[in-house]
Amino acid sequence: MSPETTQPTVKVLDKGFVRLVDMMGGDQGVVDAARVSYGGRSKGADSDKKLISYLLKHSHLTPFEHSLLKFHCRAPIFVARQWFRHRFAAYNEISFRYTEVKDDFYMPEKWRGQDKKNKQGSMAGADLDQEMLNGMFKKQVDGALETYKKMIAMGTAREMARMVLPVNLYTEFYWTVNARSLMNFVALRADAHAQWEIQKYGEAMAKLFREKMPWTYEAFLRHGWRGDNEGIAAERAALPPLEAVAK
Amino acid sequence: MSPETTQPTVKVLDKGFVRLVDMMGGDQGVVDAARVSYGGRSKGADSDKKLISYLLKHSHLTPFEHSLLKFHCRAPIFVARQWFRHRFAAYNEISFRYTEVKDDFYMPEKWRGQDKKNKQGSMAGADLDQEMLNGMFKKQVDGALETYKKMIAMGTAREMARMVLPVNLYTEFYWTVNARSLMNFVALRADAHAQWEIQKYGEAMAKLFREKMPWTYEAFLRHGWRGDNEGIAAERAALPPLEAVAK
Amino acid sequence: MSPETTQPTVKVLDKGFVRLVDMMGGDQGVVDAARVSYGGRSKGADSDKKLISYLLKHSHLTPFEHSLLKFHCRAPIFVARQWFRHRFAAYNEISFRYTEVKDDFYMPEKWRGQDKKNKQGSMAGADLDQEMLNGMFKKQVDGALETYKKMIAMGTAREMARMVLPVNLYTEFYWTVNARSLMNFVALRADAHAQWEIQKYGEAMAKLFREKMPWTYEAFLRHGWRGDNEGIAAERAALPPLEAVAK
Amino acid sequence: MSPETTQPTVKVLDKGFVRLVDMMGGDQGVVDAARVSYGGRSKGADSDKKLISYLLKHSHLTPFEHSLLKFHCRAPIFVARQWFRHRFAAYNEISFRYTEVKDDFYMPEKWRGQDKKNKQGSMAGADLDQEMLNGMFKKQVDGALETYKKMIAMGTAREMARMVLPVNLYTEFYWTVNARSLMNFVALRADAHAQWEIQKYGEAMAKLFREKMPWTYEAFLRHGWRGDNEGIAAERAALPPLEAVAK
Repeated sequence: MSPETTQPTVKVLDKGFVRLVDMMGGDQGVVDAARVSYGGRSKGADSDKKLISYLLKHSHLTPFEHSLLKFHCRAPIFVARQWFRHRFAAYNEISFRYTEVKDDFYMPEKWRGQDKKNKQGSMAGADLDQEMLNGMFKKQVDGALETYKKMIAMGTAREMARMVLPVNLYTEFYWTVNARSLMNFVALRADAHAQWEIQKYGEAMAKLFREKMPWTYEAFLRHGWRGDNEGIAAERAALPPLEAVAK
Repeated sequence: MSPETTQPTVKVLDKGFVRLVDMMGGDQGVVDAARVSYGGRSKGADSDKKLISYLLKHSHLTPFEHSLLKFHCRAPIFVARQWFRHRFAAYNEISFRYTEVKDDFYMPEKWRGQDKKNKQGSMAGADLDQEMLNGMFKKQVDGALETYKKMIAMGTAREMARMVLPVNLYTEFYWTVNARSLMNFVALRADAHAQWEIQKYGEAMAKLFREKMPWTYEAFLRHGWRGDNEGIAAERAALPPLEAVAK
Repeated sequence: MSPETTQPTVKVLDKGFVRLVDMMGGDQGVVDAARVSYGGRSKGADSDKKLISYLLKHSHLTPFEHSLLKFHCRAPIFVARQWFRHRFAAYNEISFRYTEVKDDFYMPEKWRGQDKKNKQGSMAGADLDQEMLNGMFKKQVDGALETYKKMIAMGTAREMARMVLPVNLYTEFYWTVNARSLMNFVALRADAHAQWEIQKYGEAMAKLFREKMPWTYEAFLRHGWRGDNEGIAAERAALPPLEAVAK
Repeated sequence: MSPETTQPTVKVLDKGFVRLVDMMGGDQGVVDAARVSYGGRSKGADSDKKLISYLLKHSHLTPFEHSLLKFHCRAPIFVARQWFRHRFAAYNEISFRYTEVKDDFYMPEKWRGQDKKNKQGSMAGADLDQEMLNGMFKKQVDGALETYKKMIAMGTAREMARMVLPVNLYTEFYWTVNARSLMNFVALRADAHAQWEIQKYGEAMAKLFREKMPWTYEAFLRHGWRGDNEGIAAERAALPPLEAVAK
């Protein structure tokens, strides 16, 4: 196996994923950057973990910029559009001017109804004709791909033919982000106010973040997270009380 | 007339536009910011214009960050996706989670063929069946809007129904950008290597930029522009020789 | 009077100041940028003010990037060093490689003692020999300027001679910042944990911000400010209750 | 030996250094990020090296944001002030509010004269009384440290006592920077128009950059470097001709 494929991958939605490609620094990188301010060195794991908690509690966020994670991501265009609004990160995306599109479209498992109160939201469990929606959606998306292929076959430039494709088309990109910006991403995108589809990416990021920077993630749960997410709320509730940490 | 409508608007493509909403600083703002470095004040228009030219010639770019322009823009999603890669600017975009989509799709006047040499490019004048392409494209786009409307009528959340819509859908956004970042936008997007559609936005920006910051624009033509664009090349060729400027 | 001198200036410390040079957008600019997301227009002052409050309460911060303020600032080097850590802003500073330094040094009114608990802090009212401290400080600073002048007179390059000058030397710069970044500056620098000297600049900024963007400032007091500052706490306490606002 | 001390360190000036602490990506990280755009994988070292050269030649700079280097740096304050103007990087610096200053001041080997033509520059080889300059400079700097120590001994807060210290005091910081931003740093700071002292840091960075990202560095020499620096010019002249590379 190549080293690449040994890196953790989290599947998201029906055909998407986030895969950790590389990382630098981790929890220790945060500690080292913070300690330079005080002219000191690490005094052991306990003290380091407390330092990370202290930094987040008091919004001293620059040390978290010295630890980075690099991801290979696959997400529908309408999700990527929300994602790319996060400007403090590096992006390189597949070009559909250069590469021909394949049959990679997001097909939702369940259609959600329009939220009546929150004009920007949706509601699970609405009484929708799922089968009919699936049918008309699939037919339209299939037609788009077919039209695309015909236009390509007729000699049309890829950059023009792709204009017919819907925003549920999957795209791929590399995303390099520091821990500060990643926490902001998780805070905004794993929250219940975000569209359900990008929430799933927010949760996938949270999972990899927890694996790779466990102290920072725990401190983020305690001091940085103000959102609404069932899974994250459960993780947070399961944390040992702060006094135990302080000992 | 409201003050808003008196601001210059440039139409782009079939239904797009860029409209200057507000600005700060202009050429004088660049001069003032640069002069603070030297503890001096303006010595008249001639001297100020030369200073701007000097700054760009020697890549002293920070003074250009003190002058800003704010635009209201309307562009197809596939253009907006390229646009939003420019991270040193402020964006606020219409939300299709909140707002229902109208019948605003980009319909190209002329289909371009795939460039054989440049895998990322297109060629005008290819021998394509324009009528047939128009027909199949329009049919597919019309079908997408119809499906969208039906899904909405069935109670589907807007944020989900919009997944069926193609990337030639027009979107709108406010864009606030400083002159340094705007020059970078024009340099990359008005260039012949950019997709033809965003080139038109690059040219529209160049036009408003020239109107509102004429000294900076002229200096940009002389020292900052390295691209390939017929109209801009003609403007550049029409500039008085540098010796004349120096006098 | 030139338009420049009519702009509000706030004196800070013994010889410093912040002067508003220009601005764009103001409260209305925030509202307009936010409304583009919803495809709507302003519905009057009351509704606009509530929108700003809503945006800050829910940390929708991008609309605040479309309104900017430009300041001419004069501050000691040790203050400027803290200031320039704020990266989301434009800076142009006087060059002491180019310009000869004048007799502009910060002389504190009152020396503060080392805080015993907070290793990074100071305490007013410590029992220090103020007169003796003033004397030895002034003597040393005067000596530095004298040495500088001699070195210049001997033909030394300005960029080298200035190495002898202490960090209480005043510097000047232009600072262009959007309202989002300005709120962050005030939140961090007007807070009691910041060094007293930069707190004074934070308060001066707060004063100009309140004058020029009163709705945003009020919403910031309610929803964005979590710091510790007597004057700002008093302003906040004097705000009408939220229910009154909601009516 | 700890892994840390095995990392390459370059001494700069009399008491400064830059030490590589960590890195991510390297040349391969650039290639991988670029290849995602084309939906392809590496085709061997030759092809990868050419890709890097192509990217820089055509100013496709985003792939270089996916490779980062982290440095521990020690530089005089007047150098750090120029350095921190580079905003697209992470910084954490020693705090002289928290930590007592030691006897770490930059003492130049040779004083340079004021450049008569370039008001911002200096000239080596000017006929200056080096001994006298050294004497008066050292006396003043020693006096500053002595005053500082006395003020501390009298109970003055560190954050105030340090105001007496000159800008040749050494400071330390962690600097995490991506390869794109690092190239910009080297381009501006290793250039002959920069102050000689920061040029030495620019050259040290160039040395570590060359060691750790040799393909990117070579491509930077060919396509990105437009400055004036004897050592770098020699390196550039020693590169094999481009045709040889193309084969």
